[in-house]
Amino acid sequence: MESLYYRAINLPDQGTSMAEQKATNVHWHDGDISTEDRGALLGQRGATLWFTGLSGSGKSTVAVALEQALFNRGKLSYRLDGDNVRLGINKNLGFSAEDRTENIRRIGEIAKLFVDSGVMALSSFISPYRDDRDQVRALHDDSGFAFIEVFIDCSLAAAEERDPKGLYKKARAGEIKNFTGIDDPYEEPLKPEIHLHTDKMTLEEEVEIIISYLEKNGFIA
Amino acid sequence: MESLYYRAINLPDQGTSMAEQKATNVHWHDGDISTEDRGALLGQRGATLWFTGLSGSGKSTVAVALEQALFNRGKLSYRLDGDNVRLGINKNLGFSAEDRTENIRRIGEIAKLFVDSGVMALSSFISPYRDDRDQVRALHDDSGFAFIEVFIDCSLAAAEERDPKGLYKKARAGEIKNFTGIDDPYEEPLKPEIHLHTDKMTLEEEVEIIISYLEKNGFIA
Repeated sequence: MESLYYRAINLPDQGTSMAEQKATNVHWHDGDISTEDRGALLGQRGATLWFTGLSGSGKSTVAVALEQALFNRGKLSYRLDGDNVRLGINKNLGFSAEDRTENIRRIGEIAKLFVDSGVMALSSFISPYRDDRDQVRALHDDSGFAFIEVFIDCSLAAAEERDPKGLYKKARAGEIKNFTGIDDPYEEPLKPEIHLHTDKMTLEEEVEIIISYLEKNGFIA
Repeated sequence: MESLYYRAINLPDQGTSMAEQKATNVHWHDGDISTEDRGALLGQRGATLWFTGLSGSGKSTVAVALEQALFNRGKLSYRLDGDNVRLGINKNLGFSAEDRTENIRRIGEIAKLFVDSGVMALSSFISPYRDDRDQVRALHDDSGFAFIEVFIDCSLAAAEERDPKGLYKKARAGEIKNFTGIDDPYEEPLKPEIHLHTDKMTLEEEVEIIISYLEKNGFIA
């Protein structure tokens, strides 16, 4: 408790000037609650699980099921998706190449903040460009945070047959331009940490593979 | 566990098309892990504590001490400040009026995501304009999230005497333009939830006031 009340207890007695006091506090900030402390409180080690794949490949479905499976084990995760990001912090971004890159950059920065807080960030966005994903990975690497790329691999034919939002139909009709898989490329991950074939596995198997990865690599007990 | 594996267990047997399956899953997403669930896991209710005040008023000092006090009680908080926001997600923003507003808007959106995740978001930025702060408050209100404005009230004279980063000196010398309190206004909160006079209280007293507020209002037990 001594360090907690450093300013209140120690400094007035020392008769230091306010400027010196503040400078000391800034230094003292370095020793406060750390990423590791927060992880210990939560009984886990934070990481970003970056789900990438075609529209309709099953990214959100896997993320939702994983969130539930982690919760059942008493672990805290948080999903970043179109509902809470595209409509929130990124609502001033469109779909130009520049805006798409900025969209992914901001999501990567937010995911990194969650990892720093000790939470598992589950990001599910198409994120079709390898360069954008690699930049988010580099952002994590720079801070020593874990970036786990999860390739939700599903054939275009299967994703298009599902077409849950009717987007492929609109893209084929030319009503949507630059749609990933139709007239814009999806660049597959070259070395994803986890590779799931959602048209050949059950959801149960997919979740089990991710949980096993997290256990083996010490993110959850 | 039945609902967790909805897609894998139920749907293949029902012989539904992939499109129907996906639509069902979208609906099912609504019933997944909620803000309340995450709060229950953490034993707290998330909230944004929005520290506002002059440069050198003590915002970060209080936030750091509060973070420690919450941690000592087993509660999870996360600080948003210049180090992890201005240098991260907001690194492409400058100090024009437009960029300052966008800076605060993004921080507000990020704080909201943390509240949704169950965590206490401790935001410490000067945030001098009432309109900007009120917009962040409205953002929280819209989602039923708690926004607790903490006015770090310190006279300009006292803040300028501390001048921990030497910024007032530079502003007085004309080396920094539009500096809050010198040649740019600080608009005091009209009805802050918590009002702290940092030049008249000890840090211990300040933290105790905030902890009491959080206890009385059911954010922590």
